[in-house]
Amino acid sequence: MKQLVFGHKNPDTDAIVAAKAYSYLLNQLGADTEAVALGEPNDETKFVLDHFSEPYPRVIAKASDEVSQVVLVDHNEHQQSVADIEDVAVSHVIDHHRIANFSTASPLYYRAEPVGCCSTIIFKEFTEHEVEVPAKLAGLMLSAIISDTLLFKSPTTTDDDIAIGKKLAEIAGVSYEEYGLEMLKAGTNLATKTAEELVTSDAKSFEMGGKTVRVDQVNTVDLSEVFAREEELRAAIAAQNSDNGYDLFLLMVTNILDSNTRLLAIGDGQDFVEKAFGKKLTDDKVDLPGVVSRKKQVVPPLEKAFA
Amino acid sequence: MKQLVFGHKNPDTDAIVAAKAYSYLLNQLGADTEAVALGEPNDETKFVLDHFSEPYPRVIAKASDEVSQVVLVDHNEHQQSVADIEDVAVSHVIDHHRIANFSTASPLYYRAEPVGCCSTIIFKEFTEHEVEVPAKLAGLMLSAIISDTLLFKSPTTTDDDIAIGKKLAEIAGVSYEEYGLEMLKAGTNLATKTAEELVTSDAKSFEMGGKTVRVDQVNTVDLSEVFAREEELRAAIAAQNSDNGYDLFLLMVTNILDSNTRLLAIGDGQDFVEKAFGKKLTDDKVDLPGVVSRKKQVVPPLEKAFA
Repeated sequence: MKQLVFGHKNPDTDAIVAAKAYSYLLNQLGADTEAVALGEPNDETKFVLDHFSEPYPRVIAKASDEVSQVVLVDHNEHQQSVADIEDVAVSHVIDHHRIANFSTASPLYYRAEPVGCCSTIIFKEFTEHEVEVPAKLAGLMLSAIISDTLLFKSPTTTDDDIAIGKKLAEIAGVSYEEYGLEMLKAGTNLATKTAEELVTSDAKSFEMGGKTVRVDQVNTVDLSEVFAREEELRAAIAAQNSDNGYDLFLLMVTNILDSNTRLLAIGDGQDFVEKAFGKKLTDDKVDLPGVVSRKKQVVPPLEKAFA
Repeated sequence: MKQLVFGHKNPDTDAIVAAKAYSYLLNQLGADTEAVALGEPNDETKFVLDHFSEPYPRVIAKASDEVSQVVLVDHNEHQQSVADIEDVAVSHVIDHHRIANFSTASPLYYRAEPVGCCSTIIFKEFTEHEVEVPAKLAGLMLSAIISDTLLFKSPTTTDDDIAIGKKLAEIAGVSYEEYGLEMLKAGTNLATKTAEELVTSDAKSFEMGGKTVRVDQVNTVDLSEVFAREEELRAAIAAQNSDNGYDLFLLMVTNILDSNTRLLAIGDGQDFVEKAFGKKLTDDKVDLPGVVSRKKQVVPPLEKAFA
């Protein structure tokens, strides 16, 4: 029985690569799966796929018209998944996020570890099943680890991510530092993007205390370049909130060179943001030095503040 | 930081053994954990612990007064866990059930596989971490597998359960067939139990379509012996429903020798039970030939019927 394998909506490099890697592994073990995506690759991911001459994945909007079972990578929350996730059975999940808004009717295979990148866990499964990682796939998986850990600088980075990243670089025959910086910079080409693209391309929704909180992250090498467009970004966020019913929108603008974030918070619940970070907002904004990880440094304190 | 490791409420043999086994493994890997239980061992589990001269675990009612982090084995649903589960962080889950009514604020280590017994998964972790299973612990883990799979006869049984069960029998120096039957019979000594004990000792709650459905299972070697006490059981179930707000109570009486179940259904939603099994209830009862597994043969069809 054919299964589709996919990462979250607004796919980043790990969401697309982890789907390709896990689908490859499952097929080597005898399954019939296809890696697809819930959206077009972003600039960074296009750079990665082009660099390794890997085709872009097919984009799907629905799963149930094709298959009855799916495999989720790099996410579990239903609102981050395919629109008709409730109409299909989930047979496997490989993830490195919190578990929420997820349930199944039957037992399944679920593997989550608190590591920096989903592709790190998938590499472990290759090893456990004694399946070799081809050089091209190793390059893709290395890219996912560099992307998720910001070249091992994010606090989500674990020893496993570093050790496995280095192994993958060796298999791929790539200098990870040189390639990594080039790749990250390819993802920060913000000038060519509309404000709407900036506030949607890496955005994820979270249910917190009955509110829908949308958290987007934009990586840059220059905060001031992004905030020069603040009025435009505010208008795009207001439109997102009213069009989609988000109660609160948080835009993390993260400087990947010095690992600092400036947060712009628009909507209901700014007091929860202040409570979460123990800092007052000024003109809807707050500087969060050392904060680069949505998952580890933004969502958990917010979750606590809303609880 | 000390952590408590425990299985579900109304612990069965796997819930208690898996906690002991996983706590042992985590401690070997450098953690500081204690295996505890959310209730007293049942007759089968007492037989097992006594047989291998293993102490009964300490029973806790709350976790947050002792620790801030816990490890769950053999369950994930909050209503099956410790009363104050919302006040502690879950760092690890090892389970073989569906995932529902479970969420965390942060990433965690979660490993679920659709195998017959949680201790089967834990044995794999011993192997992966190259930690030896001591003979006594092997006997306990074998007992958990025999209990959950009814000596490899339940449809939940996988090749992994059988292969690992046989390995454990070897390490423990036990003939699994002879020991297994003796152990299962020790768990079916129903004559000494009150009706209230029979309808509570292995009961679990499930949220289905907005209803609280309580499902209990009693193993026997003679159905008629149990149903001779039907009036007494009905009264005990009615009291359970009214005291605890259960909408529907299902008592599975399972003959472990011929693998058949007679189901007694008391409360609102009998029509969903009929829909789930495609059979009419007669006098609130229905015979389900070949049904022995709550998890695989009772909960999923009910879940579908209520959806």
